[in-house]
Amino acid sequence: MQLLEDRIQKDGIVMEGNVLKVDSFLNHQMDITLFNELGKEFHRRFADCGVNKLLTIEASGIGISCITAQYFRAPVVFAKKMKTKNIVGDVYHSRVASYTHGKDYEIFVSKRFLGAGDRVLILDDFLANGEALQGLISLCRQAGAEVVGAGICIEKAFQPGGDIIRSQGIRVESLARIKSMSAESGVEFC
Amino acid sequence: MQLLEDRIQKDGIVMEGNVLKVDSFLNHQMDITLFNELGKEFHRRFADCGVNKLLTIEASGIGISCITAQYFRAPVVFAKKMKTKNIVGDVYHSRVASYTHGKDYEIFVSKRFLGAGDRVLILDDFLANGEALQGLISLCRQAGAEVVGAGICIEKAFQPGGDIIRSQGIRVESLARIKSMSAESGVEFC
Repeated sequence: MQLLEDRIQKDGIVMEGNVLKVDSFLNHQMDITLFNELGKEFHRRFADCGVNKLLTIEASGIGISCITAQYFRAPVVFAKKMKTKNIVGDVYHSRVASYTHGKDYEIFVSKRFLGAGDRVLILDDFLANGEALQGLISLCRQAGAEVVGAGICIEKAFQPGGDIIRSQGIRVESLARIKSMSAESGVEFC
Repeated sequence: MQLLEDRIQKDGIVMEGNVLKVDSFLNHQMDITLFNELGKEFHRRFADCGVNKLLTIEASGIGISCITAQYFRAPVVFAKKMKTKNIVGDVYHSRVASYTHGKDYEIFVSKRFLGAGDRVLILDDFLANGEALQGLISLCRQAGAEVVGAGICIEKAFQPGGDIIRSQGIRVESLARIKSMSAESGVEFC
């Protein structure tokens, strides 16, 4: 999506360790006008999939999911993160290995908000190694919910997450796919 | 606001320890149609305040803030939480005492996204003891930003946060103010 690629070129900052800093518009300060365009595009791509629920993970997936949800006229459920294993209550949970943060964490969602019959679009801001997305897919499978696909704002296509998820037969639509990036030469898109 | 009070009566669950569970529509599953009505109401109340930025705190304030931001045509900044004291980078930060969770945490916001000249509306889902709101106000003061007010979805008016913040001269607008609640007698509004 040209609009997002242009914005990344304009305001994204490539840091050491394959980190792309987009905190001025995506995941710390949030440009809601941009979010509406991204939401429209997600809806265009998944409009005919019978989506009745959007699923994301706290915290940075929530904003884009809420704006996008308006186009689907569907509620958003966000999975919560727990640092401990002490998950209580009637929930589905999944362990997420995080290369980025160096430690695993648990995510969970109440069984009341995800179930058989749900047609779920998973949304997130980034896809890199795919750990969080795998965790969200696992929650849906436990619930017997159908994953119609995953909508990603920025996919680091040089990391394996996208291939892994697609090889499982999950449709992944990324609005910007980064082929390579470095502090010296900037960002190149697929 | 009648719509929100009705929804709390219909779907809220009063738990032990003064906990009001509204996770079916406000802070785990999010009813975006409702959020739009809340956002319109926040805008109606603060429309003439020259708001150019919305500030909230992760995670449950993000959704309502993003939807509300559309009415103000302003970006959202969310303060991030850190469990450790190891805040790095060029940030404003503040310590939040949490009675609810029993341990303190640090919140921070990048200095790039909050500054003198900003007219900030702070938004959050709950106001009880007011610790998080105090922390957000502190971030604004450090930045030299003007707090035009705080918009709260649900205020537990029987807890001291609202009085404390209002006594500092901050305008607090809560869409539902709970006078008392108990598992036996339910929720009574102010």
